[in-house]
Amino acid sequence: MAALFDVVGIGNAIVDVIAQTTDAFLSDNDLIKSGMRLIEADEAESLYAKMAPGLEMSGGSAGNTMAGLAGLGGKGAFIGKVADDQLGKVYRHDMRSAGVVFDTPDLTDGTPTGRCLILVTPDAHRTMNTFLGACVVLTPDDVDAATIEASQVTYLEGYLWDRPAAKEAFLKAARLAHGAGRKVSLSLSDAFCVNRHRDSFLDLVSGHVDVLFANESEITALYQTGFDQALAAVKTHCEVAVLTRGEHGAVVLAGERVVTIPAEPVAQVVDTTGAGDLFAAGFLRGFTSGRDLADCARMGAICAGEIIGQYGPRSQVDLTALVAGKMGR
Amino acid sequence: MAALFDVVGIGNAIVDVIAQTTDAFLSDNDLIKSGMRLIEADEAESLYAKMAPGLEMSGGSAGNTMAGLAGLGGKGAFIGKVADDQLGKVYRHDMRSAGVVFDTPDLTDGTPTGRCLILVTPDAHRTMNTFLGACVVLTPDDVDAATIEASQVTYLEGYLWDRPAAKEAFLKAARLAHGAGRKVSLSLSDAFCVNRHRDSFLDLVSGHVDVLFANESEITALYQTGFDQALAAVKTHCEVAVLTRGEHGAVVLAGERVVTIPAEPVAQVVDTTGAGDLFAAGFLRGFTSGRDLADCARMGAICAGEIIGQYGPRSQVDLTALVAGKMGR
Repeated sequence: MAALFDVVGIGNAIVDVIAQTTDAFLSDNDLIKSGMRLIEADEAESLYAKMAPGLEMSGGSAGNTMAGLAGLGGKGAFIGKVADDQLGKVYRHDMRSAGVVFDTPDLTDGTPTGRCLILVTPDAHRTMNTFLGACVVLTPDDVDAATIEASQVTYLEGYLWDRPAAKEAFLKAARLAHGAGRKVSLSLSDAFCVNRHRDSFLDLVSGHVDVLFANESEITALYQTGFDQALAAVKTHCEVAVLTRGEHGAVVLAGERVVTIPAEPVAQVVDTTGAGDLFAAGFLRGFTSGRDLADCARMGAICAGEIIGQYGPRSQVDLTALVAGKMGR
Repeated sequence: MAALFDVVGIGNAIVDVIAQTTDAFLSDNDLIKSGMRLIEADEAESLYAKMAPGLEMSGGSAGNTMAGLAGLGGKGAFIGKVADDQLGKVYRHDMRSAGVVFDTPDLTDGTPTGRCLILVTPDAHRTMNTFLGACVVLTPDDVDAATIEASQVTYLEGYLWDRPAAKEAFLKAARLAHGAGRKVSLSLSDAFCVNRHRDSFLDLVSGHVDVLFANESEITALYQTGFDQALAAVKTHCEVAVLTRGEHGAVVLAGERVVTIPAEPVAQVVDTTGAGDLFAAGFLRGFTSGRDLADCARMGAICAGEIIGQYGPRSQVDLTALVAGKMGR
């Protein structure tokens, strides 16, 4: 069956609240730089009260990837949970107006839409503090079988793996996708998350994932080895592994094939939020339109390079034109 | 009495929703480029549904000026009305965390916090569509006499002049300020607004305003003449008139004194939202710290130049450091 969607993303539907900070603020508040941690409502309140004025933008890892894919002309759908509140309306608007189909029903029990307090230090690193809110009720019931079966790739963010109901949703989606002859893709999301759930992540990657995205700290956390040894391990586990290394570019493994590409030059790195998400967007856009792996990786690098030159994880430029210009076609 | 605050700003407390658009979108939706118009809740919904994905940032003309003043090290207070909803919490957070005292009570009747749908065309012009929401209930009761009397300057945005209760609040503030021997400042805000209320604006400017801010289209709309004739008229009406001319810089009139300064060079103009507001912030910071008019104007031009190089009306750089660097002290 022809695919109605190139990619369906499943993830935490989160509005980012982005503010600048200092390294001293991070250490004063016991925040581990560049990581993501989950916080409860009361800590979200108290941390927010201490943060500088911010800007709000829809975020969430898989959500960012889907918005990026749509910006590149891909057909995408998103599954995630927002509340029937102002931030939920913003989130739904931003997905739909990007061209992404987003029909997961609102949560109406009074739990607010999730948000991520993102602190950006002068070196452009982001430290994320996520209050999941409505996201915690994403369950297998929200995984719409018809959407999964109609998508070339089902893309999942590793952050989901922190919660039992979301894990089940995850596994349901993977089963449905494979049952329909589709591909399953995963982003490992965060080294801390990988460390918390290493064994089950290893089972997941080896048993269910066709296309894996990870950065260097995530893949080495998964295999508890150096990068080169991790490369050797992952290629036996996944059909395609896309391993990003920040300013050192990326390595793509597919069986015995190894593709290495440099990072895209960036005039000024402002905020690394969304770098991995947009790399995945570019790669998946290439992958689902039949481009070779080197082109896919280049598309990922171009999109990642663009997003780190601005605040926030959703591109403010025309990604299709950007990629067309840089790829010379 | 020594002033507790340098400036108290009174204005519409508005969260900006900023998205890129095309000139075709503006004409298809009968929107007048570069203007501000008021819309009702239903139009806010329908226009938002058609807009591209956006970013949200606290805004409002006087609010932007107060955030800028605080970013320059000035002591500021703000009077404006938000609802007890998510966007209201964002707005209050952004004012307070900028260092601005903002104690106007929340509106709790269910009317949501106001928002402004800002469409930015590729030429960096912004077209604003404001749903006032909670702002419409700003009344004289919200004007705290102690705050006004403790402020060197009471700064009012012309947008308030569109509504009877806000006009009364405006006049109450002006009376209190003058009664305490303080200065009253006004930004004309918008040429369309000036055209709608020309006669009463003329009475206001000539009868109550010490320090007037206006751009070229606003001041010529007020006096229904060319720019040079408007200069001649306004200097008989206000102690200080600060007239901005975009890329052509600014003219400051004070009695027979005329100070002309060029615009600050800007690498790339991205979004003109907040240009006038930040000019006022820089000028008022200089004015309330006793700088001469040329320095005040230069500080305004530096802040305006900074804000048009980014999306949104609240600076993401350290304005104090920026101004200190550019002023060479």
